[in-house]
Formats: sequence, C-alpha cells, structure tokens
Amino acid sequence: MIDVIVTGDVLKAVTKAMVALVSEARFHFNSDGLHSRAVDPANVAMVIVDVPKDSFEVYKVDEEKTIGVDVNRVFDISKAIKSGELVEMKVEDETSLMIKFGSVQYSVALIDPSAIRKEPKVPSLELPAKIVLDAGEFKKAINAADKISDHVVFRSDETGFYIEAEGDVDRIEFHMSEAELIEFNRGVARSMFSIEYLKEFVKTAGSGDVLTIYLGNNYPVRLVFEVADGKAKVEYILAPRIEAE
Amino acid sequence: MIDVIVTGDVLKAVTKAMVALVSEARFHFNSDGLHSRAVDPANVAMVIVDVPKDSFEVYKVDEEKTIGVDVNRVFDISKAIKSGELVEMKVEDETSLMIKFGSVQYSVALIDPSAIRKEPKVPSLELPAKIVLDAGEFKKAINAADKISDHVVFRSDETGFYIEAEGDVDRIEFHMSEAELIEFNRGVARSMFSIEYLKEFVKTAGSGDVLTIYLGNNYPVRLVFEVADGKAKVEYILAPRIEAE
Amino acid sequence: MIDVIVTGDVLKAVTKAMVALVSEARFHFNSDGLHSRAVDPANVAMVIVDVPKDSFEVYKVDEEKTIGVDVNRVFDISKAIKSGELVEMKVEDETSLMIKFGSVQYSVALIDPSAIRKEPKVPSLELPAKIVLDAGEFKKAINAADKISDHVVFRSDETGFYIEAEGDVDRIEFHMSEAELIEFNRGVARSMFSIEYLKEFVKTAGSGDVLTIYLGNNYPVRLVFEVADGKAKVEYILAPRIEAE
Repeated sequence: MIDVIVTGDVLKAVTKAMVALVSEARFHFNSDGLHSRAVDPANVAMVIVDVPKDSFEVYKVDEEKTIGVDVNRVFDISKAIKSGELVEMKVEDETSLMIKFGSVQYSVALIDPSAIRKEPKVPSLELPAKIVLDAGEFKKAINAADKISDHVVFRSDETGFYIEAEGDVDRIEFHMSEAELIEFNRGVARSMFSIEYLKEFVKTAGSGDVLTIYLGNNYPVRLVFEVADGKAKVEYILAPRIEAE
Repeated sequence: MIDVIVTGDVLKAVTKAMVALVSEARFHFNSDGLHSRAVDPANVAMVIVDVPKDSFEVYKVDEEKTIGVDVNRVFDISKAIKSGELVEMKVEDETSLMIKFGSVQYSVALIDPSAIRKEPKVPSLELPAKIVLDAGEFKKAINAADKISDHVVFRSDETGFYIEAEGDVDRIEFHMSEAELIEFNRGVARSMFSIEYLKEFVKTAGSGDVLTIYLGNNYPVRLVFEVADGKAKVEYILAPRIEAE
Repeated sequence: MIDVIVTGDVLKAVTKAMVALVSEARFHFNSDGLHSRAVDPANVAMVIVDVPKDSFEVYKVDEEKTIGVDVNRVFDISKAIKSGELVEMKVEDETSLMIKFGSVQYSVALIDPSAIRKEPKVPSLELPAKIVLDAGEFKKAINAADKISDHVVFRSDETGFYIEAEGDVDRIEFHMSEAELIEFNRGVARSMFSIEYLKEFVKTAGSGDVLTIYLGNNYPVRLVFEVADGKAKVEYILAPRIEAE
C-alpha cells in the first residue's frame, strides 16, 4: 500500500516535467522516495525524476511498489492544487490512484506497468564542463533563440558559458561570465541541440530555480533542475544534433 | 421614467447571470427594486434575478415599468465598468436605455417586451435538503467534474454534502462535512444534473460569495447565489437528469 | 558608428508605435536624437517618432546616420526587455544592429534604407482646436466605439470635447468638459475618422500618458502621445473620412 502526502507544487512539478516527453510513466515508490524515468518516442531525450522521502510530509510505503500512471491526467489534476496545499496520494487496490486535496478527491485509474514502454538505462556520460546557473535566465535564452532558429549551440570555455543561435539573417548570443554563474569549472565543451526539446524542458523551472548543465563535445547534455523549492530533482538528457559543415 | 444609479459590479453580476441562459430578457422596475426572470430555450433551467431597491445608490422609478433588454449587449458594456464605479441607467423615451459611467454614455436600443419569450412561473418545489456553502468551493468542484463527465450527482445526508462524477475510468468526489458547510439541515436528498448548465451558472459567483442549495430526490435543484457583496440575488432552478439504471 | 543606451520602455514604445503602420522604417540618428517617419501603404496615416538625445543614457553618434530597420523584428525583441532595464543598440559594420540587454545579445540584419518606402513630408495643417487629455481615457472611448461602429466623430466646442459613434441601433458618446481636460483652447472643430486606425494608435499609450489632439473641420487630426514617461514623442496624423449626407 502507498499512502503519501506532499505539497501541491511537488506533484505539479514532477508531472509537468514528465509530460514534456511522455503521457504515461512508471512511478516507483521505494524506501528512498519516488523515482521515475522515461524516454520520448523518438529516443532523443530522457527524463529522470526523483523526489526524496524527506520531501514528503508523510511517506508510508509498505514495500517497494511500481505503479503505471497517466501523467497527463495527473498533471491536469495537479493544476488545480495551490502550491502550498497538501495533497494525499493513496493506492489501495492496485487499480486506482486516489488523489485528495481540500474537499475534492479523485480516483484515477492506474495503467498496468507492463503495458508502459520499458524504462531506459541511464547512460554513463563523461562531460567535461559543469555550469550552474539560474533556470530563469536559461529559459529566457532558449525562448529568445526559439524565435530565430530551430537549433542552438551550447558552448563553454574559460570566458564563460554561451548559447548561440543563428537565423537566416539574425543572430542571438547569450553569454554569462564566471562571475554571473553560480558555479563553473571552466570546462571546455561545445554541442548543438534541437530547440524543440529544450523549450519543453524549460517549462519545468522558473526564475530562482537552480539548473546544473553538464556539457560535452558533440555529446549528450545533462540538464539537472532543482524544482519545487529544491524538493524535487528533474534531470533531462538530450542527444546532440550533428552540425552540418 | 426610470433613472437609477448602481455600482458597476451589480450591473455586471446581473447581466452575466442572465446571459448564461438567454440573450434577451424583460427587466421589471417596481417599488421594490429590479426583477427579471427567464428560461432557457430548452426549458431545462430558469434564472431569477432580484436587486432590491436598497442596493441602488439612487432609485427613481415613477411607476412600475417593464423594459426589454438585450442582456448580451449590456453585459458586454458592463465589462468596461470598474467594480466600485457608479453607473447610471436611464430610460426616458421607451426606445433606448442610457447607460452612463465615467465620461462614456451608451444609448442601447430597447426591445419591445412583448417580442421577448414569455416569462416562466416560478414552480413550487418541496426540497428537503438545504446546504449553504462558499460559492468558490462549489465552482471548483463543478469545474473539476466537468473534466471527466457531463453529469454530476448532488447528494446530502447526515454526513454532509457530496458532488460525485464518474468518467469512463476516473472518478471524482467532492465532500463537505457539516463542520465545513456554512449551514446544513442534514436533509437527505439525491439528484443528478447536467454539468453543461452548472458550469455556466458557477461563472456568476466567486470565492467568498454565499451559495444556498435546495436539493430534493430526482427533483429540480435551486441554487441561490448572493452576488456583488450581497447586493443582488441570482437564483437558478435546474431540472434533474434521469439516471439510467 | 552608433552606440547608444536607453531604457527598454523607450525602445518598446517607439517600435510599437511604428508597427501600427509599417513593418520597415528608416531610423535617423543625428545630433538631436533618434527620429523616424513613415506612412501606411494606403497613405491614410503617418507616424512621426522622436526620442531626444537627453532621453538616452548614453548617446554616441559620430555623424548623422540613417539605418533601415525591420521594426516588427525589433519590437518583438523589445517585448522581452523589462521597462527599466537598459538596452544597448550598436551599429558597427552597416549590416547589422546589435541589441544587447542582460545576458542576451541580438544581431539583427539591417535593411538598405534606399529599399524602404520614401519618407513622407509632414503636411502643414491649420488646426483650430487643441485638446489635452489622459491617453487612457481616450483609449477607453475608442475601444468602446469600436464595438458598435467603424467610424467616430471627434468634435469640440465651448462645452468640451466629444467622441461620438453610432451603430445600427446603439449609440455611444464620450464627453469631457473643460474641467476634465488637462488643457483646452475651446476651439470649434469637427471631423470623422476610421476607428480601424485609431484603435491601432491607442495601443501606443496607456493611462497616465498625456495625449494632445489638434482637430480641424473635415481635416486631418494630429494625435501627439508622450510615451515612456515622457522620454519619447509619438505623433500620428490621420486623414478624415468623408461623411455621407
């Protein structure tokens, strides 16, 4: 049996993060907390969500348990919950997830976990550059780049972190020096990515949230967002695009 | 001659309440205040609006007078009025309603009252359950139910008031115990209603407004909203839906 | 070379004012400040924009310089700038305009000024009535009139300033007496105008901005808006519509 209580912002953040890539996912409740992983149908991006046990107000999970969740549906429900409001999630009979907040109680049908696309293995990646910055600044840069191109270059060297996009006639460059970054290892790296995915990812986080970027050379990037006041961790891994010469 | 002054929120609330069911209505100005009644074209729901004389800042009505009003048009105009702003309504020459606020003055053509669908008689209803609650809570429950079904069950017994909806796979239940209700007579009743109408009705009121529900068994329900800080009363009567066995 | 710094609200106000009529325009930077002029493709309306040198935080312009600007594009970019945020505009190599604010830097391709429609001469107009009022009030009146008609009459006499519109059945009248106007010379004048243009013009300004109207008899009107806290001046000249008898 699962019976947990968490604030609305955590449930909202976690389901919002997943719907960027999939509509159904497996949620694992174990002794550490809630975990979920999924890849998008095109196998280009992966999302990894972790909510440690301590981020829950109440966390009663008798034994490790995996449920299949319609994340679109739960995200939709979670929009009606106020940020600080407590929400109870309960699974008693394997067939439904009870979601309760205020005077309202939803019973959402569960999906057989075996019917959901198999979870990906998290790839092992050697990524030389580590850049820590405000997620809101990153979001602004991605949304600006989206207006002129469908891909961006992430680049880092001893002078800081760069996001660059080129349109047919216009160009945009976002630059943060070491002084403007929260943390930076001066690692040198450069890769190109689809904005299509990135603009979905940035919806997850806002100004004030911390984003850690691990960047390599023509290699996947890891974007680790701390969301819901640090109570949940959302990680995206995105494959690079090949740059035409 | 009619020459009355009222705050913008009253005119907005009254016309918004009526446009949920009709686009034209008869407005009666008599010695008690403003009254209006109308049924929707399908004869499923009725709206009854009352603004007592005391809710007006100025109320000059020489003799009882009935005018035919394009409520859609007046609601549209009323949206531009600030809540506390005073609005003057004046009928001098039978052909037009003058609506004046700030520096703007509208002349809206009146409709011959005899050309408007006859007003309904208010049915006499024996309704055992009386439930008084915050209109905002009711609104939340109806909007939530609307996402999974096209009908809801209203139910009350000694344990409180329930709104229940069932979708193909999901279920939602809203429950307020006696302690959470403003007033409750523990009456036992149960009826099913179309959400289609209810979701229009709840637009009338918001959080903080008081709603009184009179409920029977497979019988019409009366929803009485006190709106515009209690200055106007909006009552809806809605026919039940037959429940399939 | 041009290298100027100004607050975001000025760039936003100026480009927003121009996109009401054209998508491309010539910007002149001279020793006095920034100036631009354009007529709409139908030759019905003209816009004249002036930002005096003193409204810039930094104004480095080596010699008079004219650039061709895609104002739609720059307006789009300017929307992302916060009102008080500083934005740098720089032209180094004749081919692109660099726009920089916060961590983001845009390079927008310039257009050959000779490829942009020739600038109009500002007509000399004898306009007897001068009316100074709050731009927000004017905006409200135009937007209200737009709902019932496609043209309005501007009228002024010793009793004040009037905007009148007539629909098929409804009528609206906006009236400000001398006491309600900021300044008024009691000039007598009357002309009719298309709301289509006016509703674009009023987007330029808001409540608190000062608007000066110069009105004649069946003659073009001059609408002079002081925008961005008075740091920029936007003037529209609009041809009258012929009134059918």
